[in-house]
Amino acid sequence: MDHFSGHIKELIDQLSALPGVGSKTAQRLAFHIINMPAEKAKALSDAIREAKENVRECSVCHTLTDDDICPICRDEERDRSVIMVVENSRDLAAYEKTGRYKGVYHVLQGAISPLLGIGPEDIRLKELIRRLEGDVSEVIIATNSSLEGETTAMYISKLIKPTGIKVTRIASGVPVGGDLEYIDEVTLLRALDGRTEL
Amino acid sequence: MDHFSGHIKELIDQLSALPGVGSKTAQRLAFHIINMPAEKAKALSDAIREAKENVRECSVCHTLTDDDICPICRDEERDRSVIMVVENSRDLAAYEKTGRYKGVYHVLQGAISPLLGIGPEDIRLKELIRRLEGDVSEVIIATNSSLEGETTAMYISKLIKPTGIKVTRIASGVPVGGDLEYIDEVTLLRALDGRTEL
Repeated sequence: MDHFSGHIKELIDQLSALPGVGSKTAQRLAFHIINMPAEKAKALSDAIREAKENVRECSVCHTLTDDDICPICRDEERDRSVIMVVENSRDLAAYEKTGRYKGVYHVLQGAISPLLGIGPEDIRLKELIRRLEGDVSEVIIATNSSLEGETTAMYISKLIKPTGIKVTRIASGVPVGGDLEYIDEVTLLRALDGRTEL
Repeated sequence: MDHFSGHIKELIDQLSALPGVGSKTAQRLAFHIINMPAEKAKALSDAIREAKENVRECSVCHTLTDDDICPICRDEERDRSVIMVVENSRDLAAYEKTGRYKGVYHVLQGAISPLLGIGPEDIRLKELIRRLEGDVSEVIIATNSSLEGETTAMYISKLIKPTGIKVTRIASGVPVGGDLEYIDEVTLLRALDGRTEL
């Protein structure tokens, strides 16, 4: 990397820090960016700054959004009595893409992981419990079927059971170890249909 | 992509426009960026803007650099009588990494490609010819061994031959450590043609 000048090297270094971007890919991207029309490079730079500055968590469901309350939580058509709990906004987007779920969501912004030192207090769990004070009939737990996702599902289920609210888990039509955002819509729907009470 | 809000969608769209970045990768990168510490996201955004604003072509060899004249062209130790012609700055960096080449470079910023409508006037060819007015003993053509690279090599060779300056082409053949059975026939034949006495 010593053979690139300061600004090129800085750009390569910054790009290398992104997940899944190795040094060769970072080089290729850096030179692509330098050769872009000026307004396109500016648009990319601005998009990064503006997303970082303007995107926040929805004050109701905690998904990432531009607004104080996200479009789904604002939507009068959605059934507020059913809450699907997901780990992150990409998983929410994956279920939205199926077009069939009409309830609302709760985005944990993570999962419990003793290994990584992420405890129940590090995810949006007390925010979920607070929402249950409203008129909620079912909580569908759609955390990933990874170790962390299952741990989180168990924890939430134990927490909610005493309230008498129905708690369900999406079926394991989702392959074990699979990440929701990479799974096809048919499998996602089958998993939704096959949900069982915990 | 409709399930992401304005700034997230804009960032995903901008990242998707990069080479080799599909929509899933763009999503993953976008959420990674949004979850980065603010100063890291700013550093990435700034690196893109500053590289685009400050990186230009060296006025001698036309590699991409921060300065009017690049560090290699400024280096008094380099042998200015030998010029290696490469397609782009990454190819220059690849040869610099070997640590053994002590001549200077000329970066074409492309290769002749009739298919893509890139002619001799679209690359830094007249800039190369102008450099030959100085005290040059050898021009080493190190364009890629692709159709475009070979076409460019032939064109340059024909252009320089009449000046009496020695023109050479880097050898093409079986890569070191390469397993013969996995190498294409054209490369195998070229390696045969280029065999040297031991």
